[in-house]
Amino acid sequence: MVNAGVMSGSGNLMDFLDEPFPDVGTYEDFHTIDWLREKSRDTDRHRKITSKSKESIWEFIKSLLDAWSGWVVMLLIGLLAGTLAGVIDLAVDWMTDLKEGVCLSAFWYSHEQCCWTSNETTFEDRDKCPLWQKWSELLVNQSEGASAYILNYLMYILWALLFAFLAVSLVRVFAPYACGSGIPEIKTILSGFIIRGYLGKWTLLIKTVTLVLVVSSGLSLGKEGPLVHVACCCGNFFSSLFSKYSKNEGKRREVLSAAAAAGVSVAFGAPIGGVLFSLEEVSYYFPLKTLWRSFFAALVAAFTLRSINPFGNSRLVLFYVEYHTPWRRKTTRLGKYPVLEVIVVTAITAIIAYPNPYTRQSTSELISELFNDCGALESSQLCDYINDPNMTRPVDDIPDRPAGVGVYTAMWQLALALIFKIVVTIFTFGMKIPSGLFIPSMAVGAIAGRMVGIGVEQLAYHHHDWIIFRNWCRPGADCVTPGLYAMVGAAACLGGVTRMTVSLVVIMFELTGGLEYIVPLMAAAVTSKWVADAFGKEGIYEAHIHLNGYPFLDVKDEFTHRTLATDVMRPRRGEPPLSVLTQDSMTVEDVETLIKETDYNGFPVVVSRDSERLIGFAQRRELILAIKNARQRQEGIVSNSIMYFTEEPPELPANSPHPLKLRRILNLSPFTVTDHTPMETVVDIFRKLGLRQCLVTRSGRLLGIITKKDVLRHMAQMANQDPESIMFN
Amino acid sequence: MVNAGVMSGSGNLMDFLDEPFPDVGTYEDFHTIDWLREKSRDTDRHRKITSKSKESIWEFIKSLLDAWSGWVVMLLIGLLAGTLAGVIDLAVDWMTDLKEGVCLSAFWYSHEQCCWTSNETTFEDRDKCPLWQKWSELLVNQSEGASAYILNYLMYILWALLFAFLAVSLVRVFAPYACGSGIPEIKTILSGFIIRGYLGKWTLLIKTVTLVLVVSSGLSLGKEGPLVHVACCCGNFFSSLFSKYSKNEGKRREVLSAAAAAGVSVAFGAPIGGVLFSLEEVSYYFPLKTLWRSFFAALVAAFTLRSINPFGNSRLVLFYVEYHTPWRRKTTRLGKYPVLEVIVVTAITAIIAYPNPYTRQSTSELISELFNDCGALESSQLCDYINDPNMTRPVDDIPDRPAGVGVYTAMWQLALALIFKIVVTIFTFGMKIPSGLFIPSMAVGAIAGRMVGIGVEQLAYHHHDWIIFRNWCRPGADCVTPGLYAMVGAAACLGGVTRMTVSLVVIMFELTGGLEYIVPLMAAAVTSKWVADAFGKEGIYEAHIHLNGYPFLDVKDEFTHRTLATDVMRPRRGEPPLSVLTQDSMTVEDVETLIKETDYNGFPVVVSRDSERLIGFAQRRELILAIKNARQRQEGIVSNSIMYFTEEPPELPANSPHPLKLRRILNLSPFTVTDHTPMETVVDIFRKLGLRQCLVTRSGRLLGIITKKDVLRHMAQMANQDPESIMFN
Repeated sequence: MVNAGVMSGSGNLMDFLDEPFPDVGTYEDFHTIDWLREKSRDTDRHRKITSKSKESIWEFIKSLLDAWSGWVVMLLIGLLAGTLAGVIDLAVDWMTDLKEGVCLSAFWYSHEQCCWTSNETTFEDRDKCPLWQKWSELLVNQSEGASAYILNYLMYILWALLFAFLAVSLVRVFAPYACGSGIPEIKTILSGFIIRGYLGKWTLLIKTVTLVLVVSSGLSLGKEGPLVHVACCCGNFFSSLFSKYSKNEGKRREVLSAAAAAGVSVAFGAPIGGVLFSLEEVSYYFPLKTLWRSFFAALVAAFTLRSINPFGNSRLVLFYVEYHTPWRRKTTRLGKYPVLEVIVVTAITAIIAYPNPYTRQSTSELISELFNDCGALESSQLCDYINDPNMTRPVDDIPDRPAGVGVYTAMWQLALALIFKIVVTIFTFGMKIPSGLFIPSMAVGAIAGRMVGIGVEQLAYHHHDWIIFRNWCRPGADCVTPGLYAMVGAAACLGGVTRMTVSLVVIMFELTGGLEYIVPLMAAAVTSKWVADAFGKEGIYEAHIHLNGYPFLDVKDEFTHRTLATDVMRPRRGEPPLSVLTQDSMTVEDVETLIKETDYNGFPVVVSRDSERLIGFAQRRELILAIKNARQRQEGIVSNSIMYFTEEPPELPANSPHPLKLRRILNLSPFTVTDHTPMETVVDIFRKLGLRQCLVTRSGRLLGIITKKDVLRHMAQMANQDPESIMFN
Repeated sequence: MVNAGVMSGSGNLMDFLDEPFPDVGTYEDFHTIDWLREKSRDTDRHRKITSKSKESIWEFIKSLLDAWSGWVVMLLIGLLAGTLAGVIDLAVDWMTDLKEGVCLSAFWYSHEQCCWTSNETTFEDRDKCPLWQKWSELLVNQSEGASAYILNYLMYILWALLFAFLAVSLVRVFAPYACGSGIPEIKTILSGFIIRGYLGKWTLLIKTVTLVLVVSSGLSLGKEGPLVHVACCCGNFFSSLFSKYSKNEGKRREVLSAAAAAGVSVAFGAPIGGVLFSLEEVSYYFPLKTLWRSFFAALVAAFTLRSINPFGNSRLVLFYVEYHTPWRRKTTRLGKYPVLEVIVVTAITAIIAYPNPYTRQSTSELISELFNDCGALESSQLCDYINDPNMTRPVDDIPDRPAGVGVYTAMWQLALALIFKIVVTIFTFGMKIPSGLFIPSMAVGAIAGRMVGIGVEQLAYHHHDWIIFRNWCRPGADCVTPGLYAMVGAAACLGGVTRMTVSLVVIMFELTGGLEYIVPLMAAAVTSKWVADAFGKEGIYEAHIHLNGYPFLDVKDEFTHRTLATDVMRPRRGEPPLSVLTQDSMTVEDVETLIKETDYNGFPVVVSRDSERLIGFAQRRELILAIKNARQRQEGIVSNSIMYFTEEPPELPANSPHPLKLRRILNLSPFTVTDHTPMETVVDIFRKLGLRQCLVTRSGRLLGIITKKDVLRHMAQMANQDPESIMFN
């Protein structure tokens, strides 16, 4: 009984695929894959290997290798992603410092490395080590004074412009797909869409190089989102080496999900956060097997990065997100001249950023400083408190103190930095360069949080008898920690933009190592999600996907309208009837005409036009190939040969030409729903099973077809009709 | 067009449900729910509320309350679960100490609380505080000597027996469902199975009380799994208060998933780990909305527990797992006498455990001690190293040292404790009392890990010139940390039993707060999963579910056989044809006979027996209710009334009785697949859409039916035929 089944159904498809026709089973660019079919193809492949493995030891070893190839791919992805992230980190370090000066002993040393190798290694002397020369020292031999400041200022701007120009030119000429962060597109690709070249080798190379350039140029952007794209390119590259993954779009997406986890893992040094991010935000189909593999890839990547990066423990790198502003700028005139746009924004950024210490330093340094608490030995301006001379407490337990002059200065500078960051970040995103928004949006949250924290701290110090402070702030006790406010602010801002919750909290505490802050972080994550959801349910990725019009069926959107399949299917009332093939009465020419006149992806096959009883579905692409092949290789096939999809050829008049059997390209298990099926269920089916199309029947008769695009169009329509309904669920 | 659809389809089902028939839309005990239908019912309910909300302010407020009721339920669950966990903790503390002695100032104080209130509050004096009296002191006024030891020993055994007897009797008499951990059953319930009373109020009450008793009795079991069950009972209780959840089995399961997360959260004090555990191990249908709500419930629960528990920061409580041994014991004679069995095992446990300090102390104290590193001030026997008298290093950085007598003694005792724990744990599980295996299996791993750690440490000390030690162990440096070995051992042992990966690592580091150990922990989790998978893919929960024969369709099992729907559907070849209803030719009596003679859950409705064209599916339960109702209330309905499912009544002879219209109970969108659909796809559909049954058609004709049980039976059959295939995927 089992074997009887083997001869028919999808089995035939495989037999057909064994023949050396090119491109059968692949998809065209900007088309959606059929998850069920990919899965079934992989099962067939796997079954074949398993049955062969009993034949010889060599085949057995091959089957073992095949079984382990998934882990090998993960290992390779982890190694390459970790290495690239490490190289990017080192290069950014060097080039960021290059804007300020150069190392005399070796020009490829960053400021820190330069002074490392000198004899003065204490942190205080870092800025003064003689081997490191600021541009003013090197060029006009002045280290102080107005002219030196102006020269350094100019050099800073020049380098920034050079880097930005190089970056935008490289992207424009070699890899247009390398711009932006890539996460919305990766999300779309993982949901089953094909965008050829988006994860290609050129994109990998150019994105890596330009990422270094744009981050070094000091633009208000993060490298974390682009790192996820880079890791996915690595994943795509390695999966092309193993036929198990290269020939199956479904399996390839499992690898890409894991690669995204590895990317986040190296972007933040947060392996668990990476896995959760991939699960919560990026992936579409995420079986448990992928969870384990992602875990492994993220682990390897984090480990590789840690062994490369000499400043491993001090790094604060986070990931990326895009701001909800790019489409606003779609209308600006500047947008038509991408290179000019980048130059202008870079120039403005550099000019405004240089004078303010909080915008001149790199954004991750800024975040790190804002998160830090003021120990007794802290020399930062933010920690310029007036100390009680009688204080005899231990170093780490400092009571609230009145703020000194430095703190007030810092507050003003931070306020300016906050405005600057918000404005310039809006203008930076959407430019044609690799750019992430994670760091900038964290910076905005952290600045705001730190300012609020200092405010509350001073309030508590001066008014510790107020009701809200009385119970937990005794005089002389440390009751307000401005650094914690900054951390919570960063988490909240990021949560509001991305709508991440669990992965956000995990990433934050992997970053800061502070498990005790889990409750404020969780509260911030949940609150910011609630508040942001009140303005609209879409996170930044979904907004971007909608903006670009990708056919993405979001798992988070709930479809709650009362429409039925019959309202969505085509043909609609008054439209010409559905183009169908009959099982044994159309000629080759009829079919060729039909193919020429329509652009459908496939055609339902029915018993006859009268009965309209559905027997299967034939893909357009396979139909074309099969006819072409038959005309070339099979004798007697002419334009008026009858095509049949049945087991046995139909009875034909004596003089009719040889018929063409096409049962092997017929999908005998097309997905059907009845016309009364609620659209809610149809949406669920499309989402969970990853269908491309679904046929609609009533009492066994074929009525119409619903494609993924029809579903998306209908969902958008219904959402526009009744935007309120989104509020309640 | 949209409104046209509203009148038909599932809409009619809702109109029908509005009529006050009892029990329509509910399921029978030990039956599976239909996820799609539950979801569609919820959407209808929600749609109705939304449209009403525009009518008046009161309705608008009601709709807002409805939208927020999910969060309210989460809040209540978090509060109750946290409170119960706190109460259990306190009660266990007191009753565990009661086995050794009693507090004179207030008998309800535990040893620690008793001495807390006394004047001597330093830790060294804890054992000697005069208010706390050992039984020997209280009864015969002796605190030292052999007779005192024996009296204390006897009292210890007596109390243990009393607690265990009380527990097993309570479970037997009041709530048989309270035994075991409950996680496999909860997993099954979450997958859509109905087990009435499993999450009832009696189970909640009895499980909470008996959990305290069995943990206090000193049996080798953990309270963490049962806490998950307790939290789910809370979830079930609160969802019964809101009609949104009480009337919809699908929505109720969303609440239960979140409750499971809250349970793990309080069991370990690990809110994020709880959410991941619910996601990775327990839940079946886990939409992102549930992720956020789980997160919130877990947060509230952890917070509540922390505010109750005075020893909040020192607790080491982990969650539960069951060992793969219970079925072995299914054959023992003792198993037939559950009370006797519990008494015997408790007696043996108490007798053997008392003399060995590592088994006498509570298992969580043991794990905590094993995890701890030996600081310079540590007084534990495990830290009895021979110190270098010249040592001048800081307190926290101690080089490897030779082991002292205490360590050697500890090694022997640990070895005995290891054997004892393994053996007695095997015998403890499966007894008719609440029991978890998380703590015992962690203890086994921690003991083994610590012993290996001490061994390696001593090897490194005595042979630091060996190649493996040479590079990272200079003499006088701290290169081996036995506590870390214990932690990794515990994680590995637990990972092997449960096959958790990501949630395990998160829980371990939420427990230990040690983010720096993430790499060894991840490595341990992945390795133990690989090794354990080589012995068989099933984790302990799945094994238990299979053992009990629950209809659970595991998301992790891959079905890779090449069978088709036609091989699985009933009727099989040679069997009598499928019982169907015709749309307009059967009488009430015909249908009543059919219902009496079969026990199917429902019947397909076809146009006529000749054409066999499917038009819908009618549930048995609703059919019975509709006929009963019509006979009672509708005039003219007699046994030979024609029943019709069409829109219009059929044309009948003039003298025929009034026909009965049943279209409103007809499900017009039954799920169908063709007979050629690969079973792999069918399994996927059942799993992802949560179907109860699926109809099989060919060219629009109804051929048969596949139920969830048919699918499970087929999967088991195929797995038995070809056990090897499980190796490769």
